[in-house]
Amino acid sequence: MSNTQQLDVLNHRQCLDRLARVRVGRLVFTEDGLPTIQPVNFRVWRDEVVIRVAGGPKLEAATANQVVAFEADVLDPDLRNGWSVTVVGHAEPITGIDDLVDVAGTFIEPWVQGRRDHFIRIRTDRMTGREFREEAVPHYKP
Amino acid sequence: MSNTQQLDVLNHRQCLDRLARVRVGRLVFTEDGLPTIQPVNFRVWRDEVVIRVAGGPKLEAATANQVVAFEADVLDPDLRNGWSVTVVGHAEPITGIDDLVDVAGTFIEPWVQGRRDHFIRIRTDRMTGREFREEAVPHYKP
Repeated sequence: MSNTQQLDVLNHRQCLDRLARVRVGRLVFTEDGLPTIQPVNFRVWRDEVVIRVAGGPKLEAATANQVVAFEADVLDPDLRNGWSVTVVGHAEPITGIDDLVDVAGTFIEPWVQGRRDHFIRIRTDRMTGREFREEAVPHYKP
Repeated sequence: MSNTQQLDVLNHRQCLDRLARVRVGRLVFTEDGLPTIQPVNFRVWRDEVVIRVAGGPKLEAATANQVVAFEADVLDPDLRNGWSVTVVGHAEPITGIDDLVDVAGTFIEPWVQGRRDHFIRIRTDRMTGREFREEAVPHYKP
């Protein structure tokens, strides 16, 4: 037996399905003109990615309607099996009270009182996903 | 008992130490003017981050000496414990034959013959790391 690597492109629904399986992703934004990456808690909410953040640069980026990138994945240590989904879009703060109550209920309780009380959404129009699969291939014995 | 969240800033050596524990990270670069994130295999080599890639956009970015960001982390699902290290810098292909032989030996065998035969390095001058720790705090009972 030898192994071969499969790379599948995930469609929109498959991407959302994978994202719904995890709770931590990575937000990529620009700070002082340089790319910055920060781990974030997120949820899939109404087919969008919603990130819960404390104040600071991430929120500033959001309120500035910056184009950000978001990524989540589950990958094995050698990148042979797993998936990765990336969303690129404008980061927009959620401000409507009904929406805030609704989305807040999907997150676990904040572990530090008074922190993590802002929610930023990223539309998933520009979402791409890939799945890696290692498949065993029987040796061909003539 | 209640819990409190600690956030430690990691120094340069601590960042390299954390990076050496994992083999998969994420490369952030620009493609068609938009941020792109791809999972990559990497190693810490001579205190730099070295990424092994097949051809394509990642290599193009490297040869164009683009400023890229690289991130690796180990995080629990609710972002209570773990670490994240980010490196920002110019991506440079490794071209010297002695360096190529040396760095290639630190990677596992490629699983697809003829692929993954380029190496890109990112200097770690601009490296930042953070560690999250949740600590149990005894209730104060007067």
